[in-house]
Amino acid sequence: MYRSRLGTDLSDITLDYVSSINDDSEIAYYDIIGSQAHTLMLYQNNIITRNDAKKILSALDILKNEKFDTSSGSEDIHELIESLVIKKAGMTSGGKMHTARSRNDQVALDIRMKIRDDVNIICNCLLDTVEALVSIAKNHQKTIMPLYTHLQQAQAGLFSHYLLAHADVLLRDFERLYGTFERVNQSPLGAGPVGGTSIPIDRISTAKMLGFDGVLENSIDATSTRDFVAEYVAMVSILMTNLSKISEDFVIWSTSEFSFIELADEFTSPSSVMPQKKNPDILELTRGKTSEIIGNLTAILTTIKGLASGYGRDLQQIKSSIWNTSKISISALLILKSILLTLKVNEKQMKKVTESSNLIALDIAEKLVQEGIPFRITHKISGILVQLAYQSKKPISKLTLEQIKKSVSGTKVDPKIVSKIISSTSVVSSLKDRKSLGSSGYDEQKRMITDRIQKINEYRTNVTKRENKINSSIEALTKQIDEIMK
Amino acid sequence: MYRSRLGTDLSDITLDYVSSINDDSEIAYYDIIGSQAHTLMLYQNNIITRNDAKKILSALDILKNEKFDTSSGSEDIHELIESLVIKKAGMTSGGKMHTARSRNDQVALDIRMKIRDDVNIICNCLLDTVEALVSIAKNHQKTIMPLYTHLQQAQAGLFSHYLLAHADVLLRDFERLYGTFERVNQSPLGAGPVGGTSIPIDRISTAKMLGFDGVLENSIDATSTRDFVAEYVAMVSILMTNLSKISEDFVIWSTSEFSFIELADEFTSPSSVMPQKKNPDILELTRGKTSEIIGNLTAILTTIKGLASGYGRDLQQIKSSIWNTSKISISALLILKSILLTLKVNEKQMKKVTESSNLIALDIAEKLVQEGIPFRITHKISGILVQLAYQSKKPISKLTLEQIKKSVSGTKVDPKIVSKIISSTSVVSSLKDRKSLGSSGYDEQKRMITDRIQKINEYRTNVTKRENKINSSIEALTKQIDEIMK
Amino acid sequence: MYRSRLGTDLSDITLDYVSSINDDSEIAYYDIIGSQAHTLMLYQNNIITRNDAKKILSALDILKNEKFDTSSGSEDIHELIESLVIKKAGMTSGGKMHTARSRNDQVALDIRMKIRDDVNIICNCLLDTVEALVSIAKNHQKTIMPLYTHLQQAQAGLFSHYLLAHADVLLRDFERLYGTFERVNQSPLGAGPVGGTSIPIDRISTAKMLGFDGVLENSIDATSTRDFVAEYVAMVSILMTNLSKISEDFVIWSTSEFSFIELADEFTSPSSVMPQKKNPDILELTRGKTSEIIGNLTAILTTIKGLASGYGRDLQQIKSSIWNTSKISISALLILKSILLTLKVNEKQMKKVTESSNLIALDIAEKLVQEGIPFRITHKISGILVQLAYQSKKPISKLTLEQIKKSVSGTKVDPKIVSKIISSTSVVSSLKDRKSLGSSGYDEQKRMITDRIQKINEYRTNVTKRENKINSSIEALTKQIDEIMK
Amino acid sequence: MYRSRLGTDLSDITLDYVSSINDDSEIAYYDIIGSQAHTLMLYQNNIITRNDAKKILSALDILKNEKFDTSSGSEDIHELIESLVIKKAGMTSGGKMHTARSRNDQVALDIRMKIRDDVNIICNCLLDTVEALVSIAKNHQKTIMPLYTHLQQAQAGLFSHYLLAHADVLLRDFERLYGTFERVNQSPLGAGPVGGTSIPIDRISTAKMLGFDGVLENSIDATSTRDFVAEYVAMVSILMTNLSKISEDFVIWSTSEFSFIELADEFTSPSSVMPQKKNPDILELTRGKTSEIIGNLTAILTTIKGLASGYGRDLQQIKSSIWNTSKISISALLILKSILLTLKVNEKQMKKVTESSNLIALDIAEKLVQEGIPFRITHKISGILVQLAYQSKKPISKLTLEQIKKSVSGTKVDPKIVSKIISSTSVVSSLKDRKSLGSSGYDEQKRMITDRIQKINEYRTNVTKRENKINSSIEALTKQIDEIMK
Repeated sequence: MYRSRLGTDLSDITLDYVSSINDDSEIAYYDIIGSQAHTLMLYQNNIITRNDAKKILSALDILKNEKFDTSSGSEDIHELIESLVIKKAGMTSGGKMHTARSRNDQVALDIRMKIRDDVNIICNCLLDTVEALVSIAKNHQKTIMPLYTHLQQAQAGLFSHYLLAHADVLLRDFERLYGTFERVNQSPLGAGPVGGTSIPIDRISTAKMLGFDGVLENSIDATSTRDFVAEYVAMVSILMTNLSKISEDFVIWSTSEFSFIELADEFTSPSSVMPQKKNPDILELTRGKTSEIIGNLTAILTTIKGLASGYGRDLQQIKSSIWNTSKISISALLILKSILLTLKVNEKQMKKVTESSNLIALDIAEKLVQEGIPFRITHKISGILVQLAYQSKKPISKLTLEQIKKSVSGTKVDPKIVSKIISSTSVVSSLKDRKSLGSSGYDEQKRMITDRIQKINEYRTNVTKRENKINSSIEALTKQIDEIMK
Repeated sequence: MYRSRLGTDLSDITLDYVSSINDDSEIAYYDIIGSQAHTLMLYQNNIITRNDAKKILSALDILKNEKFDTSSGSEDIHELIESLVIKKAGMTSGGKMHTARSRNDQVALDIRMKIRDDVNIICNCLLDTVEALVSIAKNHQKTIMPLYTHLQQAQAGLFSHYLLAHADVLLRDFERLYGTFERVNQSPLGAGPVGGTSIPIDRISTAKMLGFDGVLENSIDATSTRDFVAEYVAMVSILMTNLSKISEDFVIWSTSEFSFIELADEFTSPSSVMPQKKNPDILELTRGKTSEIIGNLTAILTTIKGLASGYGRDLQQIKSSIWNTSKISISALLILKSILLTLKVNEKQMKKVTESSNLIALDIAEKLVQEGIPFRITHKISGILVQLAYQSKKPISKLTLEQIKKSVSGTKVDPKIVSKIISSTSVVSSLKDRKSLGSSGYDEQKRMITDRIQKINEYRTNVTKRENKINSSIEALTKQIDEIMK
Repeated sequence: MYRSRLGTDLSDITLDYVSSINDDSEIAYYDIIGSQAHTLMLYQNNIITRNDAKKILSALDILKNEKFDTSSGSEDIHELIESLVIKKAGMTSGGKMHTARSRNDQVALDIRMKIRDDVNIICNCLLDTVEALVSIAKNHQKTIMPLYTHLQQAQAGLFSHYLLAHADVLLRDFERLYGTFERVNQSPLGAGPVGGTSIPIDRISTAKMLGFDGVLENSIDATSTRDFVAEYVAMVSILMTNLSKISEDFVIWSTSEFSFIELADEFTSPSSVMPQKKNPDILELTRGKTSEIIGNLTAILTTIKGLASGYGRDLQQIKSSIWNTSKISISALLILKSILLTLKVNEKQMKKVTESSNLIALDIAEKLVQEGIPFRITHKISGILVQLAYQSKKPISKLTLEQIKKSVSGTKVDPKIVSKIISSTSVVSSLKDRKSLGSSGYDEQKRMITDRIQKINEYRTNVTKRENKINSSIEALTKQIDEIMK
Repeated sequence: MYRSRLGTDLSDITLDYVSSINDDSEIAYYDIIGSQAHTLMLYQNNIITRNDAKKILSALDILKNEKFDTSSGSEDIHELIESLVIKKAGMTSGGKMHTARSRNDQVALDIRMKIRDDVNIICNCLLDTVEALVSIAKNHQKTIMPLYTHLQQAQAGLFSHYLLAHADVLLRDFERLYGTFERVNQSPLGAGPVGGTSIPIDRISTAKMLGFDGVLENSIDATSTRDFVAEYVAMVSILMTNLSKISEDFVIWSTSEFSFIELADEFTSPSSVMPQKKNPDILELTRGKTSEIIGNLTAILTTIKGLASGYGRDLQQIKSSIWNTSKISISALLILKSILLTLKVNEKQMKKVTESSNLIALDIAEKLVQEGIPFRITHKISGILVQLAYQSKKPISKLTLEQIKKSVSGTKVDPKIVSKIISSTSVVSSLKDRKSLGSSGYDEQKRMITDRIQKINEYRTNVTKRENKINSSIEALTKQIDEIMK
């Protein structure tokens, strides 16, 4: 460990530089399944014999349950698996597995199978997290809190409304990824190195066996474009910025100064030297990991941007970014869900803060509007009321009629109306009156919660259908293979 | 111009720092239309009188055709337009326009209306460019060229195939943006500053008037999330990397060394000192502008990532990135289409290069496969043939039987079969035999061209429908307004 | 404004796409000065006659005070200025100005002259801001505040210490940019398009005339590398992240919940609808603009990364990013300085918060260490004390001996010692005892303030020297030109 | 491997999410050395006894040669090492090691020690690569090649000139990193969690023991700023873009179409299906890895940008980016050096291409300038000559006097002079005449080579001095420790 990092042999450095073998463990499984489908198709189209197929498929079947020795000097998993198949099945049969395909369509295939599975996992995690948000919202439809803009208290609101805002954002993240899946789940298998093949393969058949929705036809396109990777990582980047925002809120709300929430112990860390501390490290890590994924996206786009047509090895370098992106986002969602479900909400503090600030100012202005006074005038009156309250260190509700008169001076507004409105306006009354579609009033909460639960169920059905389709394809493939291997 | 940049007054510097007024010209139109719909709704729901509505709408109508004086000290277009309306309509009426909305929902509205229009424009431009690609492909179904991987000649192929690869990529860019539109075209109008309003507005009604597909309900979400911006710019970034790739290819193909294509004069630049030069500057600019848009995306994600919930002024800063992203991508597509349509293709050179390289090596290997020889063995034989040809400085087709024997030594393959296959294989025969789905053979070109033309038409219909829906909504709105203004 | 953006003529779109003329106003001045020096050198080396020189220099002199018509169709400022010189001086003389140079070395020259000036301006702004930080620190050496880690209160500290932390960071930003200057201030003039010239020019002479520290020799390097741009923007990006961090702190401290500071009115914005609000928009904009500059850096690196050797037009696209980077950072520093100088610090609140939290926990643990008890044990004791205080809702200082005994149970520590230490420890006593180098105790403040003032002066002298050198070179050049123009 | 990734236990997922233990192997060594110095200082300042020191130092000494079990559940290396020390040395002594420091200054210390070593390694690698470039340049001072702008042939030049351009760029990369070292090599040790300590430690002493150039004083600054990381990664990003540019050139020059160079076999890869191919994968990987490092920089800046003052756990996430950045850049430089030293240069092809293109056009124009004709006119004449040559498919030198007359029509230039100049101008004569400072002529090559060799030696001396200073500090520390452990 402590020896000079410069002492290593150049050929080792070079192999390490070009090799993706360590990153490839993520796609070994897909490489094997893809090879099974390809082999089956070659046999079904009389390109190889049943005997060849049997030998290759048996070798692949064994590999499926083996742990690979990645230190064998193979540059990538495709090479490694093929060499192991040849070793097990013999050159005469095994040497036929790579017929009518190349590493270029093969790696594209593996990445697509990996991403489509990750998309489905993330979609499920998203729905779980949204479900958690909605279920907590259900319990907090009466929990009063200040809503913020510019981190300044702006309006009185409800905690459920805050939670539902994030639910809606994450549902859009679901929709985005759900849409991306369509472009991911297309089979490039059989496109060859760049121009296709003269061997009479059936690309539609392998696509079906592997649960793809279609074929990525054009062979140049199929082997060299990574737009689906950029799209996937972009969608996850956006998702992560949303998780980062919740984290940012919760970090601020966990301060002694805010004291709105308390994280469960398992999601905080103690200080190595300050015994009194309970640090929201995990939320900070989500913010930091969001940056990392934005960096992944930058790297991927920068790579793709610089390429000429046709596969270039630059593309190898983006693989680890993909795995990293998937792993982080899945973990972040799983953890966030648990954070939410174990969150202690300090309702008293939220309420106290809301009521002690003059957050009914806008409500008063709006009530004056309903008396026919132009909003720009009521806005000014309300503003003066707030200032007067601030100067005399009491809430608006305690202002004297004398003070209220000041607020309407220069307008034709009757101070008594203002006074009446003030005395009839409280945080609670405001939240009762707040009825516009999607607003943070009592009424809208119930409606939105019911609606979102329905949406979650609907989305869940859709993603499950997709998973089932893939699973049953793979099962059918396995059955056919078992048949041949018998 | 040459005076010290430090001499300016601080308050000017500050205003310039906070102001977005210069960027806002891009949304002035949308701000006015949005205000019209909002005013009409306020009237229809008895929140303001017909007289108020008439005055406000008349003021807005005048502004629609005015050029704004942005040097008035207004920080943004919303403030400027409202102040002009109040000036024209009087405080009593004009002061009511801002009832039940805030700058937070207003700016979100404007950006959404701007982006949805830009998406539609880009979608149309994409289809135009794809159409150009396909139409040129039609003329080049027999134009032989080398296909590249790693910028090394890999297989013989057809120029049409190359063009169709880009057509397919751009059709996916269309699909991506087409999907993004759904999330963009949701109305945030009426969400208020962050928590909604107690004034009985009808958000669904304004959404319809303005041609939206729905309402972005939750008021926190509606005012503070910019995921749709990030999504839009991400999709355009991917699109631009695709244009960058074509540019990269064409820059390389325009070199004297490749000489595959010649750009029309209007798309090249002369050198300021080297009289012999014809520089592909415009393609280089597309590459450079792609980087700029990737930078825009980074900036937007970085901004969003750092925000707490509720509108923050940080978001103002991303506006210019959006306009810039739209402008660049639209121009880039328009120009690329024209570059394609005026492109001179050097078919002779392409063919010469293809035939003089041993690009039939893989075809030979594949033919040997069809004799039952494992691909890994035929691959080796082919490899030796290429090496022998290279060493004896002649094409594979001129190798002697003696040389061919060398290539099969150690295998059981009959050198005569190899010889026969070699003599029956040419670039043209290979392209005839290349029949796998999506391959670069003669047959597949025709099929794909027909299919893509149909796809273009279908996509065109869809995007036109969307545009029509927006246009007819706006027309209906205008009619209603004219009615009131009478 | 409202007409279709698609209606414009293609040649206009193309010109707009390739043209940098609007961005070039930033370098027009430098282009003229550079041309003056080049012309003078051509004359001094007998490449052009005194008469030619006189005519060209007179034309340039006029242009120096003219406003350019950028709508003339010129693609860039170099072309425009040369054409105007030829117009004024005639082809016979004016046509000689571009001898032995090209646009490639010219634009590199202009950018370098612009950036070196910007570096000096930013360096001065940095020192101004640091000076402001230190001068306020001077007044707040006794202002107690909580220091935070993870946004959780961690230790008691002094506000001066906080300010000095930022001063030190910004001094390093100064050092970084000061170092960058050396690589910027090298003359590329005379490198030609890419390979130099056979005309006997004197590159060292023009470098001196223009105040450069040396010549960027290799002609390929001089014309095509933009590492100095990337370096400059990277250094400014880091600087901006530091300003963003201060902004983040101040946004949080401006909340009602923290109430540590109040920004002067001129640096906050009112709400369009919530009359009670005072939003820290300008700080948020600094955060947003930081993202923009990070985006600029990404764009620049992405562009440079994709280039082959020799000038490529991609590089044109980075120019506007440079101007934008300079403008933002200069403004941000000027504004921050003013924000600091007008900041209202709520010392009472800071102190109250510090004292009401158990921030002396670590101090108690450290005092126990001085009794020979291992830190890991004292850390635990302190931790229990904090918990007990928290549970019994009183400060540590009010804990009973009984409670203190609990804290030492399982150790051999005498509870009386603990008790004694507790009663002798207060926030103030801790800050007196805090004496380690660079710590947030009283003593270190004075030393550091004195030291930093000295550092500022030293740095100021250095940057002034640099400015003077450039200015006196340009003055000497002007004198020589005046001589010839007589 | 194939089991559901969702099945893992949440607490495992959480630990994996927060843990940096796997990344920390890179700094284990530094953590131990830092702890040694800290312990020694505690003893020397009578904070711990000689016996305590002996026990701790002995435990650390053993750990230095142990391989850590990172699966122990420790979140990071600091915690792990301290717990192992306590295990070996007992709580009474071992529990004192963490006195007067925290993980916050500790991790900053480790990262700084790691980066300063990496900077020195990279600096050495840079000098090695520059040395390789210069040594090859020495052999190619007469190797004629076309110089390119816009990837179009521009001027005749020399291969040595090309190589020296990159040498100069990399020397600036050296200077940048050399400057960064100064800001990295400052000790944060003893800054505590954020506010320093009351324990009478000696921070200057530990700084010296560990070979630092000074102390990073302010405790907030020392523990929470990562500007030095951003600076380091920014400098390496720029360095990588330079390596990417060489790679881009070499990828293009390795095409059959250019055929300027041939890479040694160990730096190319065969195709999995196309037997004739030799792909420059390693160069492509350098391009791809450059993107990755740009992504790292984006991630780091994005993280830092979003932080408030005081350590935040977000910062943990940037560690792996640092290690990755170092590893890639060191390998890339080592490999590039070897690529250069084994490069086959196709001098014939380079020369042929240079001579068959009309690259002397500018030289002719410049010679005409020396006849007193304005450059703008000679530029036009030359331009017409090139066009005529192009149209009549022969080189300029074969143009008839009749044709030459056409080129001067409209000017007063004597066609005979033009003719004379043409016949006296060849690529070789041009390169003889090319004498401007830094130009691609014969004379300048020799001068620049001599100069750069001297520069390399000078730089080498400087970086060696730095390494020696660190090494001798560590040796002295070890001696002192051995003394105590006796």
